[in-house]
Amino acid sequence: MNQYCVGIDVGGTSVKCGIFTYNGVLLDKWEVLTRKAEQGKYILPDVAEELKKHLAEKTIAYEDVAGIGIGVPGPVEPDGHVPVAVNLGWKDIYPAKIMRELMGGKIPCAVGNDANVAALGELWQGGGRGFSDMLMVTLGTGVGGGLILHGKIVTGAHGAGAEIGHIHVRDVEGERCACGGMGCLEQVASATGIVKEAERFLRMFRDPSSLRIYGKALTAKIVCEAAKEGDILASTSLECSMRYLGIVLAQVSMIADPEVFVIGGGVSRAGDFLLQIIKKHYEEHTPILNKKAELMLAKLGNDAGIYGCAKLMLDKE
Amino acid sequence: MNQYCVGIDVGGTSVKCGIFTYNGVLLDKWEVLTRKAEQGKYILPDVAEELKKHLAEKTIAYEDVAGIGIGVPGPVEPDGHVPVAVNLGWKDIYPAKIMRELMGGKIPCAVGNDANVAALGELWQGGGRGFSDMLMVTLGTGVGGGLILHGKIVTGAHGAGAEIGHIHVRDVEGERCACGGMGCLEQVASATGIVKEAERFLRMFRDPSSLRIYGKALTAKIVCEAAKEGDILASTSLECSMRYLGIVLAQVSMIADPEVFVIGGGVSRAGDFLLQIIKKHYEEHTPILNKKAELMLAKLGNDAGIYGCAKLMLDKE
Repeated sequence: MNQYCVGIDVGGTSVKCGIFTYNGVLLDKWEVLTRKAEQGKYILPDVAEELKKHLAEKTIAYEDVAGIGIGVPGPVEPDGHVPVAVNLGWKDIYPAKIMRELMGGKIPCAVGNDANVAALGELWQGGGRGFSDMLMVTLGTGVGGGLILHGKIVTGAHGAGAEIGHIHVRDVEGERCACGGMGCLEQVASATGIVKEAERFLRMFRDPSSLRIYGKALTAKIVCEAAKEGDILASTSLECSMRYLGIVLAQVSMIADPEVFVIGGGVSRAGDFLLQIIKKHYEEHTPILNKKAELMLAKLGNDAGIYGCAKLMLDKE
Repeated sequence: MNQYCVGIDVGGTSVKCGIFTYNGVLLDKWEVLTRKAEQGKYILPDVAEELKKHLAEKTIAYEDVAGIGIGVPGPVEPDGHVPVAVNLGWKDIYPAKIMRELMGGKIPCAVGNDANVAALGELWQGGGRGFSDMLMVTLGTGVGGGLILHGKIVTGAHGAGAEIGHIHVRDVEGERCACGGMGCLEQVASATGIVKEAERFLRMFRDPSSLRIYGKALTAKIVCEAAKEGDILASTSLECSMRYLGIVLAQVSMIADPEVFVIGGGVSRAGDFLLQIIKKHYEEHTPILNKKAELMLAKLGNDAGIYGCAKLMLDKE
């Protein structure tokens, strides 16, 4: 009987690992440092070694493990090929195949993009629980996304599914985005984007603001907190940033029309206050919808990835 | 043996009907006038009567018909319920159930939204042939869309799938769209949008232009033809309209990432000239994609609907 599944979320600093029951209870969780030396060739062997120990500790037999799901920070092709994962040093590898061999060929393995598997995790046991059509938005240093329709990840024909951070949102942007575009959502609504937008407002207006004392030390968290406390420049600039996110969510509604949007990533710690701003602008830009999609906060934090990796395997059954 | 399928595309003026072989050959095609009296209650009986005649003429037995697919100009719920189709007078009906009864309960029937089934038709036998992930854009009086992923129509959780005409594209729009929004794609890139944009350019600049003589009689076709012949105001305004369409296609790539975009509708008769303008702006707004989606012209014209209706039934098998 396959009663367990394993999630392995490979990150640039550490690899998060978890053992789950079939119905989504996290039994054991640990981290392994990411050894990036020699094109990251030690990463998966390190993980396999630790996994063997943890399975032995819990006296879980290999035949009771339905599978191991692996999340990778980079594009994953339909056959499991990872052409490149810059943060790991990986190039042209098949992580699922390697992991399967490392575990003695006895446990099925699968691989997915990390943003996509995090979305799957939130759908399974987090903010999207009970839904089957969802877009997860990760507001961190960048803006990431994971789209799920009918319970399945939409990877896209060229691996660009839910790359919402690089949707063009404004023509007046003065700088280029890392992707080469101009006026990408990420340039205005990511943690760095929120700071840049606040700095622009501070230059534009001479009004007093609690943000002025921070100079180069300004962060998205400070902007959110000042906005919450009623600082006018902070809340105007945050509104401007989140308006673009609301517009993009409206676009998503008029393309893929999910039931729910789940907002995660570091910036989402600003909580319901932030959610309500996004919601206002989302609703303003979807007059065509009688019934709007719901907006929820993510619930699993950094564990979303391991949950999604485990679910990836259950879905393969 | 089920060797045939039937497509019924219900429009506000006429109902287009076709009998197809399993592999997509159109054997017979006819139209029935749309009788909208008494909440459109005669529409389906009229169609059924004609269909019986055509099947008899071709000596096709009911048991050789895999099914009848029906396209409806309005939202269609997953269970086949049509809450309202304003152009037909329909309210709260189940067209597939009614048609099945009209045909003696012997032929399976299904129903879909007309823009979505037209997309399915183009995927099956038109511009999207050979692909499985496609967005079809219909540039007519409005801007419609149909999204297909893995060969299946994406209707969306609230029936707004591929409603790309109502994506917000510009903040400076001065008028409200019919949907209640401001700055919708349809306001600038539909046939009426192309004319309005050209009129705006004619007001904005005093330069000579071949468009000036038309006054209120200006059409999208005239704008496209003048642009093709090198009229600078016409081509600048058309570029402006199609730039927004290119931006929306880029958004679609970064949300659902299809393999191909198929451009249809009356405006698309401007052909490859128009396609190249859209393509230029699409590519400029997708620097993140190493491999871009293809852009094609639709091939089936007004028959796309009946093809898609027939395919709807084949997919049910």
